[in-house]
Amino acid sequence: MKRSTLTTFVSLALLLSGSALADDQALREKAARAGLAPLPETVPDPSGNPVTPEKVQLGKKLFFEPRLSASGLISCNTCHNLGMGGDDNLPTSVGHGWQKGPRNAPTVYNAVFNRAQFWDGRAADLKEQAKGPIQAGVEMANRPDQVVATLKSLPKYVDWFSEVFPGEEDPVNFENVVKAIEAFEVKLVTPGAPFDRFMKGADTAMSAEQKDGLALFVDRGCTACHNGINVGGQNYFPFGLIKRPGADILPPEDKGRFEVTHSASDEYVFRAAPLRNVALTAPYFHSGQVWDLKQAVSVMGTAQLGAELSDEEAGKIVAFLQSLTGVAPQILYPALPVETAATPRPQL
Amino acid sequence: MKRSTLTTFVSLALLLSGSALADDQALREKAARAGLAPLPETVPDPSGNPVTPEKVQLGKKLFFEPRLSASGLISCNTCHNLGMGGDDNLPTSVGHGWQKGPRNAPTVYNAVFNRAQFWDGRAADLKEQAKGPIQAGVEMANRPDQVVATLKSLPKYVDWFSEVFPGEEDPVNFENVVKAIEAFEVKLVTPGAPFDRFMKGADTAMSAEQKDGLALFVDRGCTACHNGINVGGQNYFPFGLIKRPGADILPPEDKGRFEVTHSASDEYVFRAAPLRNVALTAPYFHSGQVWDLKQAVSVMGTAQLGAELSDEEAGKIVAFLQSLTGVAPQILYPALPVETAATPRPQL
Repeated sequence: MKRSTLTTFVSLALLLSGSALADDQALREKAARAGLAPLPETVPDPSGNPVTPEKVQLGKKLFFEPRLSASGLISCNTCHNLGMGGDDNLPTSVGHGWQKGPRNAPTVYNAVFNRAQFWDGRAADLKEQAKGPIQAGVEMANRPDQVVATLKSLPKYVDWFSEVFPGEEDPVNFENVVKAIEAFEVKLVTPGAPFDRFMKGADTAMSAEQKDGLALFVDRGCTACHNGINVGGQNYFPFGLIKRPGADILPPEDKGRFEVTHSASDEYVFRAAPLRNVALTAPYFHSGQVWDLKQAVSVMGTAQLGAELSDEEAGKIVAFLQSLTGVAPQILYPALPVETAATPRPQL
Repeated sequence: MKRSTLTTFVSLALLLSGSALADDQALREKAARAGLAPLPETVPDPSGNPVTPEKVQLGKKLFFEPRLSASGLISCNTCHNLGMGGDDNLPTSVGHGWQKGPRNAPTVYNAVFNRAQFWDGRAADLKEQAKGPIQAGVEMANRPDQVVATLKSLPKYVDWFSEVFPGEEDPVNFENVVKAIEAFEVKLVTPGAPFDRFMKGADTAMSAEQKDGLALFVDRGCTACHNGINVGGQNYFPFGLIKRPGADILPPEDKGRFEVTHSASDEYVFRAAPLRNVALTAPYFHSGQVWDLKQAVSVMGTAQLGAELSDEEAGKIVAFLQSLTGVAPQILYPALPVETAATPRPQL
């Protein structure tokens, strides 16, 4: 290579690199303007529920406690498996008596960043959410009084609740059960995703394809619904805004948020799915009928945006979605207290 | 106190203390003569299955892997919950389709010290045992080819099997699945029980009541069946040797080891239950119909020894059995690989 050619080559490379840097910064700003945000460094305590290390530990035990269910067999972790992206990888969950639940189990990871909980947002926060599955006949099929009777029969739980909720006359109660579970779930955040590292300035954290996907995700309008820290989970939208999907994906009998508000405008309205770790949580949609993430992206394009995404575009958006996979916290599997003569027996 | 009185008092105390020391040593020797033994410091590798740290890690993932079951919902840990004494605290386990299994799930802790596995000893070792529940229609309801297809569809498993079984042409196979699970289970031992500390010379590790119970356990003849490292699990005996228990505890349709050997002398014969951590593993017996450990001890006295144990005697034996509770290893909950398009779908 001649000297002049080399100089030209080096200058060109510097120019390109400078341009790439400028592009990265522009993409970051574009994403931020569209409402996308990296995970925060800290999570504020939920309203009325100060998070202490002891409460988190108690919440962890309760999260893995199958005796919160009537059968003694089903724990929160059964459907929100912390080793499998925080869900169960089933179309819809299986609960008491092998009954199938009506909707796909959402991930518990980063759920604290959702505006409200459940596909229809019927629970304002994680505390309220936790009350649902424990009592649902098709899930854990238990009753609050039975849960409390079980926990009171296990002396170690009585000690732990007393320590975690000091000064309370009767600390083993259903409100405190869900407060402890909420405190544990607040810790279930997954930092370190390529997207977060990129947004915080690490240009090389995302691949070129992932960056293209992010740009498309904004330009195509996906961020109209999927925005905020959780890339979704912030607001409610009709599924089939432009074109209603088939009955396999959108079963007519599940009218979504209509069941909560009974407002006609809420028919087939659902909370926009939070997309963090979405690559780990197939199958997709509330009906859990789509296993392939690229197909799910295409369905969204057609149904919500009226856009037939090309295979290449959908592939790039999938690459971006894969950059939302973070690092789950390490969990030491908890030892649970041994039952006593007073412990209610499993109802099978 | 006068000087002479004080001298007498001190001498008496020393004499008593010396006598207690001698008693402790005598009790230790009595227990050893009856075949009881503390947990060994190390566990030899199972025959034909060298235990490496990588194999243990792979085995742990498989132990917690619900996709070993046809439904994708049931893992080894479902019925052998490592947070609950290594069993499920149910009378008999619940499996695929909410079917109830025929017998109570034995603990997986210290199972490596059993002469053979299952209540009827039909599996020679932990490898063979692990093949059972994966394929049993009432448990995980899967097939070896389907298990292998699932694992081969998950690239991380393919990598891990290649690392753990180097030089094998096709390392992801059913034999290697159960070898890895066995390697993990070999590590599921619970040292530090008061009984073990006592047997190794710590006189105060067991309470006076527990020592009385140990002496009774030997003197009454319990050690005739419950001996060895696992205080049981070494040999086969008819349930109801002296007096057959009622049909609630010994259902007539389950003929025990007879189903394995088809020898008339094996009717209602079972492997003597290993008693380590027995205080954590109610309900008791293969039928799982007795929740109270003291009642279980009384049943054994009547059925096996022809002895009506007094309430005080049964209480002391229970105290001894509680001294068999050891310390479970700490388990970091494993992250499991994400499914691919090739992964067989859950059969629900």
